[in-house]
Amino acid sequence: MVKTRGPGLYEITDRVQGIVSVIGSTEGICTVFVRHTSASLTIQENADPSARRDLEEWLQRLVPEHDPLYTHTDEGPDDMPSHIKAALTSTSLTIPLVDGRLGLGTWQGVFLWEHRAAPKVRQLLVHVG
Amino acid sequence: MVKTRGPGLYEITDRVQGIVSVIGSTEGICTVFVRHTSASLTIQENADPSARRDLEEWLQRLVPEHDPLYTHTDEGPDDMPSHIKAALTSTSLTIPLVDGRLGLGTWQGVFLWEHRAAPKVRQLLVHVG
Amino acid sequence: MVKTRGPGLYEITDRVQGIVSVIGSTEGICTVFVRHTSASLTIQENADPSARRDLEEWLQRLVPEHDPLYTHTDEGPDDMPSHIKAALTSTSLTIPLVDGRLGLGTWQGVFLWEHRAAPKVRQLLVHVG
Repeated sequence: MVKTRGPGLYEITDRVQGIVSVIGSTEGICTVFVRHTSASLTIQENADPSARRDLEEWLQRLVPEHDPLYTHTDEGPDDMPSHIKAALTSTSLTIPLVDGRLGLGTWQGVFLWEHRAAPKVRQLLVHVG
Repeated sequence: MVKTRGPGLYEITDRVQGIVSVIGSTEGICTVFVRHTSASLTIQENADPSARRDLEEWLQRLVPEHDPLYTHTDEGPDDMPSHIKAALTSTSLTIPLVDGRLGLGTWQGVFLWEHRAAPKVRQLLVHVG
Repeated sequence: MVKTRGPGLYEITDRVQGIVSVIGSTEGICTVFVRHTSASLTIQENADPSARRDLEEWLQRLVPEHDPLYTHTDEGPDDMPSHIKAALTSTSLTIPLVDGRLGLGTWQGVFLWEHRAAPKVRQLLVHVG
């Protein structure tokens, strides 16, 4: 479970690596799955926070609130944009293990991408096999 | 195989769950793969159909037909937009199992996303392991 | 490792199939993972190169360089667009095997999608299991 406080990228690399370490597999695939349709997952640069901010701002501009196209508005102005953003990004990630660790590149981190404005508790499934 | 009758989201949750149930695994990963480049897969809200309609309309507007940029037009005005839409969404989904069922959240459904206008028969691969 | 010479799609289907063949599994999942946040992976039409060119041109137009929104500009004008393009496409692909081969459809090929302008050597992980 990941608690979020508004839109943006929340790094979960260490938590996912922690689960991999506890399970103790040296080889295989780690699958991360988010059980929501208004949040998503991404692997992005974990070095410079400005890259993540620009990413968030760019997606906000591509999929703004209050678009007259939306008819699904009962759950608030940020709900339909959240579904669209989730569809354009990823509900699951699959990461090969290398020597018992996530086989990420030097600059890669794993992030939950929150699209809703209100605080949320997001459920993830992490499978190693 | 999924028969489609024009653009939009076609729910396949029950069919995928049915395959999972027949195989009888209680734990593991279900992978769904679409064998086409002008249709894709998504996990989206399965409660209110207006969310799926807005999603379809929004993507149609982002990737319209008859864009002067397109040079790949021999297969009809909806062909190149279909490839772009497929690239922006997903060719495969990976869903962890929980107690022998797809580990979907309360509001999540699995959908084939058809991007072509003509009726099609779409081939999927479903793997449980 | 894949050497790239500027933006575009580089087909890697034969190389991935070669790894699958060497491992010799007849059944399972092939996972391809790119260890970078400014390149990505996609499954697209491998017949007509004009489809891939249009796809590249369309994404270049959607995510142009020199957008005043960007603050993450230290690594060059093509860096932030590359991260956004990677987020909109895929860092990993999962492809079921059919009779020891990638279960691709007739027109599907596997591609590394380079988003940076300078020549790069891109690292991939390929897992079969």
